[in-house]
Amino acid sequence: MTTATHHATDAGFTLAEEHAMATALGAAATGVRGANPLVGAALLDPDGRLIAVGRHHGAGTDHAEVDVLNRAAAAGASAEQIAAATMVVTLEPCNHTGRTPACTEAILAAGIRSVVHAIGDPHRAAAGGAHRLRTEGVEVRDGLLADQARDLNRRWLAAVGTRPFVTVKIAQSLDGAVAAADGTSQWITGAAAREDGHRMRMLADAVLVSTGTVLADDPALTARHPDGSLAARQPRRAVMGLRPVPADAAIRGADGRFHALTTRDPDEALAGLYAVGARHVLIDGSPRLSVAFARAGLIDELVVYQAPLLLGGRPAFPDLGLSTLGEALRFEPDEAGGGAATRFGPDTRLRFLPVDGDAPESATDAVHAASETADTSATRKKG
Amino acid sequence: MTTATHHATDAGFTLAEEHAMATALGAAATGVRGANPLVGAALLDPDGRLIAVGRHHGAGTDHAEVDVLNRAAAAGASAEQIAAATMVVTLEPCNHTGRTPACTEAILAAGIRSVVHAIGDPHRAAAGGAHRLRTEGVEVRDGLLADQARDLNRRWLAAVGTRPFVTVKIAQSLDGAVAAADGTSQWITGAAAREDGHRMRMLADAVLVSTGTVLADDPALTARHPDGSLAARQPRRAVMGLRPVPADAAIRGADGRFHALTTRDPDEALAGLYAVGARHVLIDGSPRLSVAFARAGLIDELVVYQAPLLLGGRPAFPDLGLSTLGEALRFEPDEAGGGAATRFGPDTRLRFLPVDGDAPESATDAVHAASETADTSATRKKG
Repeated sequence: MTTATHHATDAGFTLAEEHAMATALGAAATGVRGANPLVGAALLDPDGRLIAVGRHHGAGTDHAEVDVLNRAAAAGASAEQIAAATMVVTLEPCNHTGRTPACTEAILAAGIRSVVHAIGDPHRAAAGGAHRLRTEGVEVRDGLLADQARDLNRRWLAAVGTRPFVTVKIAQSLDGAVAAADGTSQWITGAAAREDGHRMRMLADAVLVSTGTVLADDPALTARHPDGSLAARQPRRAVMGLRPVPADAAIRGADGRFHALTTRDPDEALAGLYAVGARHVLIDGSPRLSVAFARAGLIDELVVYQAPLLLGGRPAFPDLGLSTLGEALRFEPDEAGGGAATRFGPDTRLRFLPVDGDAPESATDAVHAASETADTSATRKKG
Repeated sequence: MTTATHHATDAGFTLAEEHAMATALGAAATGVRGANPLVGAALLDPDGRLIAVGRHHGAGTDHAEVDVLNRAAAAGASAEQIAAATMVVTLEPCNHTGRTPACTEAILAAGIRSVVHAIGDPHRAAAGGAHRLRTEGVEVRDGLLADQARDLNRRWLAAVGTRPFVTVKIAQSLDGAVAAADGTSQWITGAAAREDGHRMRMLADAVLVSTGTVLADDPALTARHPDGSLAARQPRRAVMGLRPVPADAAIRGADGRFHALTTRDPDEALAGLYAVGARHVLIDGSPRLSVAFARAGLIDELVVYQAPLLLGGRPAFPDLGLSTLGEALRFEPDEAGGGAATRFGPDTRLRFLPVDGDAPESATDAVHAASETADTSATRKKG
């Protein structure tokens, strides 16, 4: 983290810059979580008018700063107008050439002389953007709407540089089953939900299941198109656990992307995947593994495809080992990436972020406290 | 059912009338299910222009025909303009003075000479509207978009005149639990979801639970405002089962609205409630009763408040007794009454209609069949 992240909240911001930052945060929230944070950007002309708004569109694509510069040009802004603009961005511009060029160089190439960002980039390889820009004489101010920007990527900020971001995905019936009592589970959800699930696989760096899931279901775990053909981008296929993976297990494949982690410890498994470059791990349809990660506080994002049927059968979250309501593992709806509840045919995709135990109390907790305070003889009875 | 429902699909309809009926169906679908069907209406001027659109707003309020007449007047239409209009309505106008006046009389009083409806009113007490209007010289045509109108109220039409409409409501965790292992359940959902649940109670004629739920939770089952005060309209509070209800059980209350049904048979219980005038029964937070009604095919509407937490504990739908996916009890999202998925604070309200076993195959079934047809070596492996 650069020192730039610590000193500038006392710098003055204009109302136009604050509005632009709010707009950029809104644009950021339409992105998809994963290896990268949600980032949005806006360009403001010297009179405080918005020229363009952009955002990051997912791993391997243009960063928000490049996106907004492209959009401004596409909207007819001249090179002079862009050079005179203020770049307002929710995260410190990166100073790192990875799958895409460094944003600092794009900003300098555009001739921009003023940058406002919300929070510093904590990623060691990418940080230093503010310093680099200042060295070239660009005015850089930070700290505008920093709390909102941090909250948007709370879990990503906690994970970055230390372990992959973890998404747990499960397809369940309305009563929380992943399979009927006899094990039948093809298909609980419909084609549209399954297609969206394959899109999630394609975006992940690694798909992770337990040896138990491999032995029970023998999943291929490839990212596929609806016609069954393989997607161009494939995640690593990882299995964790102590039991051996059969030689003919589908997960092994023949493309060298299979990865066995002989551990039952979530931290060790994530360390192993981080070491081979995975920055976004998708735990996909593996109930006991989902519970292990939930209990370890290692779910950064929970995606549930829920089909409208009552099934009984095998639970999606087995053996949580909780005894009372106060111990429940709490989540909150995630509005990012297209919303907390989205229909796919007859099914609903629900997306959640964990509510951290030591974070400010959740809405549910607050409501609980409020209703206890307001208790009356009429409400003391349940129901 | 009057003979009027059988003869007029060959009557000519104008394109404007068809558009108006589609609009009325859309308005109907914004209503709330229960004792009454979803009904919408539109008024068309002689040139085929929409004057107003109305709908039924729930038990005890204006019917759609009265609503659209009121709206037309409020929008500035003169008595002459209204008299010259065609009334387009999704259900045959009722000929029955109940909690509200008969719609036939409102139409005649307005001087309207032309009525188009989609389907006949199957309710014995209310039917005969078309006949009554024709007797007064009004031109009545029916059958326009009849399939859509029937589909909108499919379950209501099957129940009407024989038993109450049955809504099952349950509040569960994301993993389908209504209480923790130790029985704690206050509160799984937040204040906003609970307020909506009390609104549902207020609209029902009777709230029904099992003796098991009374003995375990001692619910009051009154409809209450957020401050704990009683709502002006209260449902009957019914319990079914063979075990005695304790003399001090909260459900008994002191207002004479308690009703004990000494049976474990869903059909008998519904007959008993129908006999005392209940046309909409709400099974409220009673897991085993919900399952009994689900297995009997007697759920007309399923409303699930789902809180974003993992709890383990007591299932919302226990002991379904199903062994394989093909036996699953299937539902479909219900877009009526404000949508299939609606957020209440951190919680999501999901609303479903049952997919009848002998109905045309569900979207899920169709998808299943399609994916089996399209099976390839890549898709044969699960996942």
